[in-house]
Amino acid sequence: MYDGTHYSGWQSQKNADTVQRCVESALRKITGRKVKLTGAGRTDSGVHAIGQVANFKTHSKLDLNKIKDALNSHLSGEILIVSAGYVPLKFDAQRSARSKNYRYTVTTERFVDPFIRHFASRFSYPLNMGSMRRAARALTGRHDFKSFQASGSSGSSESNTVRTIKKIKIEKRRNLVYIDIRADGFLYNMVRIIAGTLLEIGRGKMPEESIKEILLKRDRRSAGPTAPALGLCLVSVEY
Amino acid sequence: MYDGTHYSGWQSQKNADTVQRCVESALRKITGRKVKLTGAGRTDSGVHAIGQVANFKTHSKLDLNKIKDALNSHLSGEILIVSAGYVPLKFDAQRSARSKNYRYTVTTERFVDPFIRHFASRFSYPLNMGSMRRAARALTGRHDFKSFQASGSSGSSESNTVRTIKKIKIEKRRNLVYIDIRADGFLYNMVRIIAGTLLEIGRGKMPEESIKEILLKRDRRSAGPTAPALGLCLVSVEY
Repeated sequence: MYDGTHYSGWQSQKNADTVQRCVESALRKITGRKVKLTGAGRTDSGVHAIGQVANFKTHSKLDLNKIKDALNSHLSGEILIVSAGYVPLKFDAQRSARSKNYRYTVTTERFVDPFIRHFASRFSYPLNMGSMRRAARALTGRHDFKSFQASGSSGSSESNTVRTIKKIKIEKRRNLVYIDIRADGFLYNMVRIIAGTLLEIGRGKMPEESIKEILLKRDRRSAGPTAPALGLCLVSVEY
Repeated sequence: MYDGTHYSGWQSQKNADTVQRCVESALRKITGRKVKLTGAGRTDSGVHAIGQVANFKTHSKLDLNKIKDALNSHLSGEILIVSAGYVPLKFDAQRSARSKNYRYTVTTERFVDPFIRHFASRFSYPLNMGSMRRAARALTGRHDFKSFQASGSSGSSESNTVRTIKKIKIEKRRNLVYIDIRADGFLYNMVRIIAGTLLEIGRGKMPEESIKEILLKRDRRSAGPTAPALGLCLVSVEY
């Protein structure tokens, strides 16, 4: 679980504070050896996680809960290891995942509640929930989501862009709109581009029928903008 | 409404970022004149507010909502002006208050949820809610709370230390304990010393019957420790 506000995302990068790097460095201190973590989701800079999952191999004979507690003592208050368990050697937090759930949160207030300012992105147009839900239905299922993959991101763009969205749920509570997406996997920036597209549809800037066409075009430019990172949270991963 | 994490409290001080100073400086830009704010509660460094109230006098003929919106545009995302209204000239946000409500939040988890780390203080002992509630009952009513006033705080210590606590409600939801206190006024650090004392009673370090004695002693040393600022929030003020 992490508040991603002040991190440069999950994945280790040179000269950047990433969640993976912080956890790996704590593990190194605890086990005395260099440890390589594999995370389920490569969350971007500013993206949060309630249910990130990561695995690593170690020769350490330390008790599982001792490792967990030691990690939490070493880590800053922004990252919390919620639980720890043994997995088969062939387990890979990313590749073994059956599905991942992301939540995108939007506030429609003109000025954002200070207490959620890092966890909801502002969208100041009124949203037609019906349009958004119908567009979401068109996205659900097995499709080529190439139009919803960030273009030009070296190393992150996949050649196989077919994914299955199992469910999209859109809810409004007071001034917050939650877009929950479950899929067997996500392309780079896919949730944020889907959120950005659904928001454009919700405000009436794009027709709700455009989803089919966008999917067919297989061109990033046909979809809506990438919604800001701070509204995104990796909620859970299923195996 | 403000997230007080990165502020040196409400009240203007030399060379310190305070909420009052930020709002006054924004008001100065908007009205073109120096403005003096009077706040209902002088929240400490790190203390939050959902319902702070402040008043000021101005000759500006700007529309009330324009002032509110302009303030929100000038202020950082950590402070939000929720509403604005006209008051009689003699209104004083602090002195005219009939009662104030503060909430103190404690988490009993050993490691704190990253998303509430600035809003709940950690207390890792099991708490006896019954003891805490009975002790709270002994605090309720009109008493001399001198024992619950921070000592030696220049300018902040009051000679009249009699206050009326109208209600204390203690609730536990999952791993969070909420202490809600309503009083006609609070002495310096009073809520945090009450919270600190109730927590000592809750963990069995002080007997629940000790409240009467503490009140009678009129000595800060007789009460429990001052609970950390980050768990405190000014919830509302009634006039």
